[in-house]
Amino acid sequence: MIYLDHSSKIPLYMQIYEQVREEILNGNLEEGHVLSGSRGLAKTMQISRNTVNNAYAQLEAEGYIYSKTGIGYAVVKVSKLNRKNEKNEENRALSWKKEKSPAVKYDLTNSSHTSDLFPQNLWKKYTMECMERLHRESRISELQEKQGELYLRQNLLTYLKRIRGVKCDERQVIITCGLQQSLEYLCNLLPNERKKILMEEPGYHKALHIFLNNGFKIAGVPVDQNGLNIRELPEDNSICAVYTTPSHQFPTGVTLPINRRYELLKWADMHDTYILEDDFDSEQRYYAKPIPSLQSIDQHDRVIYLGTFSKGLSPSIRMGYMILPPKLIDAYLKKYKDYNANVPVLNQYVIGRMMETGQYDRHIRRLNQIFKKRLEAFQQSFIELGNHIKLISNGTGQYFLLEFREGCNQNELIQKALEQGVQVYSTMQFWQDKAECPPNTIFMGLSRIKIEEIPDCVNRLKTAWSEWL
Amino acid sequence: MIYLDHSSKIPLYMQIYEQVREEILNGNLEEGHVLSGSRGLAKTMQISRNTVNNAYAQLEAEGYIYSKTGIGYAVVKVSKLNRKNEKNEENRALSWKKEKSPAVKYDLTNSSHTSDLFPQNLWKKYTMECMERLHRESRISELQEKQGELYLRQNLLTYLKRIRGVKCDERQVIITCGLQQSLEYLCNLLPNERKKILMEEPGYHKALHIFLNNGFKIAGVPVDQNGLNIRELPEDNSICAVYTTPSHQFPTGVTLPINRRYELLKWADMHDTYILEDDFDSEQRYYAKPIPSLQSIDQHDRVIYLGTFSKGLSPSIRMGYMILPPKLIDAYLKKYKDYNANVPVLNQYVIGRMMETGQYDRHIRRLNQIFKKRLEAFQQSFIELGNHIKLISNGTGQYFLLEFREGCNQNELIQKALEQGVQVYSTMQFWQDKAECPPNTIFMGLSRIKIEEIPDCVNRLKTAWSEWL
Repeated sequence: MIYLDHSSKIPLYMQIYEQVREEILNGNLEEGHVLSGSRGLAKTMQISRNTVNNAYAQLEAEGYIYSKTGIGYAVVKVSKLNRKNEKNEENRALSWKKEKSPAVKYDLTNSSHTSDLFPQNLWKKYTMECMERLHRESRISELQEKQGELYLRQNLLTYLKRIRGVKCDERQVIITCGLQQSLEYLCNLLPNERKKILMEEPGYHKALHIFLNNGFKIAGVPVDQNGLNIRELPEDNSICAVYTTPSHQFPTGVTLPINRRYELLKWADMHDTYILEDDFDSEQRYYAKPIPSLQSIDQHDRVIYLGTFSKGLSPSIRMGYMILPPKLIDAYLKKYKDYNANVPVLNQYVIGRMMETGQYDRHIRRLNQIFKKRLEAFQQSFIELGNHIKLISNGTGQYFLLEFREGCNQNELIQKALEQGVQVYSTMQFWQDKAECPPNTIFMGLSRIKIEEIPDCVNRLKTAWSEWL
Repeated sequence: MIYLDHSSKIPLYMQIYEQVREEILNGNLEEGHVLSGSRGLAKTMQISRNTVNNAYAQLEAEGYIYSKTGIGYAVVKVSKLNRKNEKNEENRALSWKKEKSPAVKYDLTNSSHTSDLFPQNLWKKYTMECMERLHRESRISELQEKQGELYLRQNLLTYLKRIRGVKCDERQVIITCGLQQSLEYLCNLLPNERKKILMEEPGYHKALHIFLNNGFKIAGVPVDQNGLNIRELPEDNSICAVYTTPSHQFPTGVTLPINRRYELLKWADMHDTYILEDDFDSEQRYYAKPIPSLQSIDQHDRVIYLGTFSKGLSPSIRMGYMILPPKLIDAYLKKYKDYNANVPVLNQYVIGRMMETGQYDRHIRRLNQIFKKRLEAFQQSFIELGNHIKLISNGTGQYFLLEFREGCNQNELIQKALEQGVQVYSTMQFWQDKAECPPNTIFMGLSRIKIEEIPDCVNRLKTAWSEWL
C-alpha cells in the first residue's frame, strides 16, 4: 500500500517512486509481480494519472520495472543480497592530513601574492567586454582551439617578441594550465628513448618532482655565481633535456651571462638535446629591461620556452604557455589530437585583451615598482642589522636569499623566526644532494608582504635572530 | 661611435645598448676592451648620464660586459661564430594542417552549443560577486587548494547527492579541467601492475584514446539494448578498470537497468577492479528524474564517479570533477602532492555560487526544456519522413541516433547531407572493431541547432536522403 503525504515537500510522484522501489528492494514485490495500472492507482489515490506515470517512468528508466505489452509494468529480479547499506562515512579509516595553521603573521612566500597586486578592475572590465564579444560571435559555448585561442597566442607573441626577444609564430604556442601542465605535456613529447634530464643544482624542486613522477632520471649540474656551470655539463648522449632558469636562476637569483648562453646552446646542439627554458618571472626586472631569452638566440630549434601568468597576474589564474620548436609541435598535434584545450576560453580572451590594449604592460610596470620598493625596504632594513647577513638578489622577481655567517643553521633560523610569527623558508628543498646545501642560507619571498608591514616584520626577525646578528 | 636618433621611438638607452651589443657580437669590440666611462660618454653625446648607465646595466645584466673595479666596464669574450642569424620563418618546413571549412549551415554536433544555452547574465553577475568576495578575503592572489576549492566541492556534493544519489564527502572530490584531465589523472592512479581497461563497444572514443596514449591495453565489451552486456564481462584478473556510461550509454543512448548495475558491481568486486562511471550528461533527463548513479549503490569503493560542466554549462568552461574512493584519494594526494590545482579559482566560485543559490538547477531545467523541444521537433519531423528511418533516444542529453533500413551506408548518408549543408556524424568512430559498426546508423547532436532551424534542416535532409526514404 502506498501512503501519500500531501503536506510534504517531496513531490507525490517521488513518494510513489520511493515506496515502490523500497518494496522491490525489500523483496516484498517479487519478480514478475505486475504493478497496479496507472489509471486505477490514480483513481484510488485521488491523484492525477500523470503523477503515477511519472513515478513508473522513473522506475522503468532505472530498471526496477519493465513494460509487459498489454499487461502493464512488472517487477524485475533484484537480488536482495545486493541491497545497499547506508555507508557510515564516519567509520571509514581515512588518513586525511590536517593542514597546520601556525600563528604566522607574515608569510614570506613567493607563491601567493597580496591581493592588491591583482588588477581586479581590469579583470572585471575585460570579462564583461570579452563575454559580450564571445557571445556575439557565438563562441562562448564552443569547443575551443586545442592549442589555445589564436587571439591570445597572437597577442602573447607580440608581447614576448618585444619584451623577451622570442622568435616564433603563433602555431608554435600552446596555452596550458601553468608550468606544471606544460612540463607534464613535455614529459610525453620529449624523445622517449632517452630518459635522463639535467637540472640545475640547486633548482626548482616542483619541476624535479614532475620529471620523477614521469619516470625520468635526473642528474644535477652545479650552479655557481653565474648560473648553470657549463663546464660541468656531462659528455653523455642519454640526456633528453636540460631544465634551466637562465634569466633568474631559481633559487640563487643569478643571471646566466651571454657567453654561457651560447655555450649551452652549442652543447645542446652537439648532444642533440633540448633546453627547457623556464622564464617564470624575468619580465619582472626592476632595474633594466628583461634579458633576451635563450629562445631568441637559438638557431637550431633546441629551446622550449616556458612561461606562466602566476607571477604577473595571480597563481589562482592557472594559466601558462609553452613555445615549442616545429618538430615538437608536430609531435604535440599528433599525440594530443583528440584532446581539448584545458584553459577557459573567456580567461584567455581577458588576458589577450589586456595585452592588446597595453594594460598588461602597465600592470607589470606597476608590479615591478611595488616589488622594487619591497626589495629595497628589506635591503635597507637588513643593512641596518649589521654585516653578518647578506641579501642576495639580481633585482628580478619575487624572492631573495639571505646569507648568514658560517656556522648558522637554517632550521634554527626558521624555527626562531616562526616563534616571532614570521615564516621564512629553507633552501634545502631546492637541493637534490641535501648535503651540498649551504646551511646558512634561507629563502624569502616578497609576494605576500606589504611595504608597510616590512619594518615590523624585520623587527621580529631581529628579535628572532639576535644571537646570530 | 654611437649614433643617437632623438626623433626615434626607441628610447636612447636602448639605442646605445643595441649599438654596443652589435659591436661586441661583430667582434669590433674585443675581449677586455674597456667601454667609455658613463660620465664622459654622456657629456660627449649630450645626454643624461643615467641613460648611459641604463644601457650599460642592461649589457652587464646580459653578460656582454663586466665591471672591472676602478676601471669601468670591459667586454667579455663572445665567439663570433655563435652569432645568431635571423631566422627565416617562411623557410621552415612546417607541416601545418589547414582546417577545412565546408559550407555547413547546420552542424549536428553534440560538442558545441548554441550560445543562448550559456547563462551569460548569471555568469557575469556571479563573476562580479565572487571577485569581490575573493578580493575581500585576500584569496584572489593565493595559490589554491590542490583538489579544488572546498566551497565548490561542498556545493557540488550537495547537488550531486540530491540529483545523482552520490555518497561521499568533500575530501573525495577533485576538481579538474574536464573529463580528459580526470582520465589522465586516473591513468596514473590505477594499480599499475594491471594494464588492461574494458570499454563499452561501441563507446566514447576520446576516452579510448587517452587510455591508449597512457599505455593501457583495451578490450571491448558489447553493448546491447540494455547497455553494457554483463554476460560478456571476461574472467580475467589483469583488468584494472571498466569504463562505462551507465545512465546514458554513449553513443547508443540506452540506460543500464538496476539488476545489471548490481551485477556489474559484483563482478568488479570479485575481480578487484575499478569502475569508471562517466556520468557526463545524465542530469539532462527530460522526462524523469535522473537515475541514481552506480556510485550511489556501490558498497565496496569500486566506483570512480566522473562528471563535467561541458554539457550543463559550456565546453569552453573546461571544468569537470571526479569522485574517488578513499584509497585512491590517498594515492592522488601522494602522487600529486607537489602539484597545484588546474582550474581558475574564480570560475570555481562562480559555479559553486550558482549551485548554492539554486540557479544551477534552474539553468539545467531550462536547458532540459530546450533540448526536449529540439528532440521532439526532430522526432516529429522524422516520423513525417516515413517509417524507413527510426530515431533512437532515451530522452537524455544532447544527441540521438538515426537508424536507416538495412543496406543504407552511413558514408553516403553523411556525404549527401553535407551536400545540402548539414553535417551529421558517423558512428564508426565509436567502434574499436569497425566491422561491427552497423553501417545504417548515424549520430546526430542537438547542441548546436536552434528549434526554429529544425524544419529547414530536416527539409534539407529529406532532399539529401530522398532515395533512402
